[in-house]
Amino acid sequence: MSKPSLPQGTRDFSAEVVRKRNYIFNTIRSIFELYGFQPLETPAMENLETLMGKYGEEGDKLIFKILNNGLSDSKNIDKAKAAFENVLLGKNDKNLTERALRYDLTIPFARYVAMNYSLLPMPFKRYQIQPVWRADRPQRGRYREFYQCDADVVGSKSLLNEVELTNIYASAFEKLNIPVEIRINSRKVLAALAEICGGADKMLDITIAIDKLDKIGIEKVKEELQQRGLNAEQISTIEQYLNIAGSNEEKIEALSKLIGDNETGKAGLNEINYLLSNSRLTSATSQIVTDFTLARGLNYYTGIIFEIKAIGANMGSIGGGGRYDDLTGLFGVPNVPGVGISFGVDRIYDVMEELNLFPSDVHTGTQVLFFNLGEAESNAAFQLAQQLRSKGIRSELFHENSKFDKQFKYAEKKVIPYIVILGSKELEEKKVNIKNLSTGEQQTISFDELLNFGF
Amino acid sequence: MSKPSLPQGTRDFSAEVVRKRNYIFNTIRSIFELYGFQPLETPAMENLETLMGKYGEEGDKLIFKILNNGLSDSKNIDKAKAAFENVLLGKNDKNLTERALRYDLTIPFARYVAMNYSLLPMPFKRYQIQPVWRADRPQRGRYREFYQCDADVVGSKSLLNEVELTNIYASAFEKLNIPVEIRINSRKVLAALAEICGGADKMLDITIAIDKLDKIGIEKVKEELQQRGLNAEQISTIEQYLNIAGSNEEKIEALSKLIGDNETGKAGLNEINYLLSNSRLTSATSQIVTDFTLARGLNYYTGIIFEIKAIGANMGSIGGGGRYDDLTGLFGVPNVPGVGISFGVDRIYDVMEELNLFPSDVHTGTQVLFFNLGEAESNAAFQLAQQLRSKGIRSELFHENSKFDKQFKYAEKKVIPYIVILGSKELEEKKVNIKNLSTGEQQTISFDELLNFGF
Repeated sequence: MSKPSLPQGTRDFSAEVVRKRNYIFNTIRSIFELYGFQPLETPAMENLETLMGKYGEEGDKLIFKILNNGLSDSKNIDKAKAAFENVLLGKNDKNLTERALRYDLTIPFARYVAMNYSLLPMPFKRYQIQPVWRADRPQRGRYREFYQCDADVVGSKSLLNEVELTNIYASAFEKLNIPVEIRINSRKVLAALAEICGGADKMLDITIAIDKLDKIGIEKVKEELQQRGLNAEQISTIEQYLNIAGSNEEKIEALSKLIGDNETGKAGLNEINYLLSNSRLTSATSQIVTDFTLARGLNYYTGIIFEIKAIGANMGSIGGGGRYDDLTGLFGVPNVPGVGISFGVDRIYDVMEELNLFPSDVHTGTQVLFFNLGEAESNAAFQLAQQLRSKGIRSELFHENSKFDKQFKYAEKKVIPYIVILGSKELEEKKVNIKNLSTGEQQTISFDELLNFGF
Repeated sequence: MSKPSLPQGTRDFSAEVVRKRNYIFNTIRSIFELYGFQPLETPAMENLETLMGKYGEEGDKLIFKILNNGLSDSKNIDKAKAAFENVLLGKNDKNLTERALRYDLTIPFARYVAMNYSLLPMPFKRYQIQPVWRADRPQRGRYREFYQCDADVVGSKSLLNEVELTNIYASAFEKLNIPVEIRINSRKVLAALAEICGGADKMLDITIAIDKLDKIGIEKVKEELQQRGLNAEQISTIEQYLNIAGSNEEKIEALSKLIGDNETGKAGLNEINYLLSNSRLTSATSQIVTDFTLARGLNYYTGIIFEIKAIGANMGSIGGGGRYDDLTGLFGVPNVPGVGISFGVDRIYDVMEELNLFPSDVHTGTQVLFFNLGEAESNAAFQLAQQLRSKGIRSELFHENSKFDKQFKYAEKKVIPYIVILGSKELEEKKVNIKNLSTGEQQTISFDELLNFGF
């Protein structure tokens, strides 16, 4: 028998971690619901064809595929052999793998909307908090199973949605007590930059290079732009663009000059201005920061994009999102625009640990342990524990009449704040001895006083 | 583009269903915590070798295996080919599938306990509420992805655990408002019956046959016992055993006579008596019923076994569990006895629907929709919605200035109880018109009154 282990890149979550994670999930969930978003849960497994081709070539390779069952059955074996040849050529084949694990929450959401379109209220506002799986190489902070936490509105082009999502970010991070910058840009501004620098076909090159700014710095970005065929004048414009700094107003003014009469750029600036003037954050912990260097990689965004940076923590973005033109076209339902945001729960967890932000009452373990000191004594203790439980006090009775020391150690290991000693003398007097394990304070109180004790 | 679909045997859960399911989960979770059980979460994927051989030959076939990634890479291709030959022979091979989806919560729990044994408080009380996956043929009420909801205590032989688990069942079903019978038996009683009827080696045959009693009736059970080689006298004893009826006391007296001096049987009866006399259920909705026909199939139970039957609902068991001698021996840590119970959440859901038991406030959708009647109006409405949200009222502002009719339909489709109309006239007067959509009642109130409205 080999020692048991966990698959690489996966984790067990012990009680303390589960509780802290649930604190994050519940906080975000309650904010989503305050804004009228409704929960959705989709299965871990999707048909392979639902997922393939949606995440680019690299993404496709990271999808976990599920082997069909019964491959060695005589009715399946020949098809399976042929299918395996296909798989070895890097293709997919339903006769070997029909299903795969969810890679994100967006494609299952799109599949759900396409399947249920006529039944859904439009705009449809859903949130979804579930794990996803990716066959990425595991490394610090990157797991093969991790939770995503998304909210999307589909079926609406209104910028009011962006305003509300901005407020959701602000409220959630205020509740979590994490000071953040909500960085915003519009992909239309990036498109305008491309148009100014040699045409719309340069958008991809420019976006890829800009996206690396944080990591490689301006000089390397310029090198990359040169390699990608941009000339000195164009690179100079992009540098000017990337150097835009100051307050939101100053940045917008500078950009305005740079884009001049470019219609796409003006549309992008209008979006940003609308968002800034309508969001009116009341949160003390959040601020909206216009950031024209924000690009959000290669994805399908077309309008406002978001990225969240925790202030005072050494951590990449802890949330992001943006507007897209078409969610469900791939599934046969065209013209469903939308906008969505995502919370990076694993990173939020790390930031909260780093900044010591979890409230102390996240701990919902046992509040009181009754020592077990014999049959009659434990009988009485059990009755008291039952009465405390009916009042919502999390109570335990030690499982056997062991030495004091062993029962103490149990309380310590479980970080139980109070122990109750009910021996034969106490039983006679209908009293208990209660001890606060953190202060050491100890007192003898009646059964009734125990039932009304301020745990 | 083919129409998107879900894999067979899997389900999307819409908002209403998610909320009702969470109501069940949260109720059971809070009871688990009142008794000092702590949450654990394990990954969806386990190493294949952790799971294989634990569920019998039939179970092994129902495990969903995950195909390794990168099989077509030149460094893997030869090994993958050889591995595939093994898979076609019905064997497993790490070079094709290293990982598989969790089949239940017990084996991952055992793996966790074995890996962390020295760090855990003993007895270790954990609960776990997570989905599992089985490649069963889907049918009504049987899914390929479904949640399990388990609580186990390991590292203790004390019957106090059985007493507490019985009380957990009673409290949980009382909170859920489901009247239940908590049926109990001891595997030791069944073992005694086998000893009386030709020896301990008959235990398996007798258990298998008895387990079918509900489905096939006494005559077919007798036929099966005959086919399994039991003689007329033995079958007569078993029939006598299965016919034991009456109150708990009457049943125990009758069994007592039947088993006579059999030591195993007496030990089993002692367990049952202890449980009956110590559980002292105070719940009006639960009763403990001794049921000697209860067998709990082929699994590893060795002491008290449980099964829950909803009273007044046409449904099989909605929970079950029992004591086992050794949880982690298979993973190299011997002598860890325990006892656990499980809640059948899908069936509990169906019973609650059938008996109409979900409380009306499970609905946590939007409480109030502000109509969008233009820019200035919706600006004011947005501010009011923000203030209501800060008071915990789930509020929405319709995303665009559409026709009344469209905004009404949205409210209806989302079952939003209140709509607020804030037009130019109302804006001038700093008033709103609020309408209760279920009663039709309508009134004009000030902004301040709205903020203190009893939603």
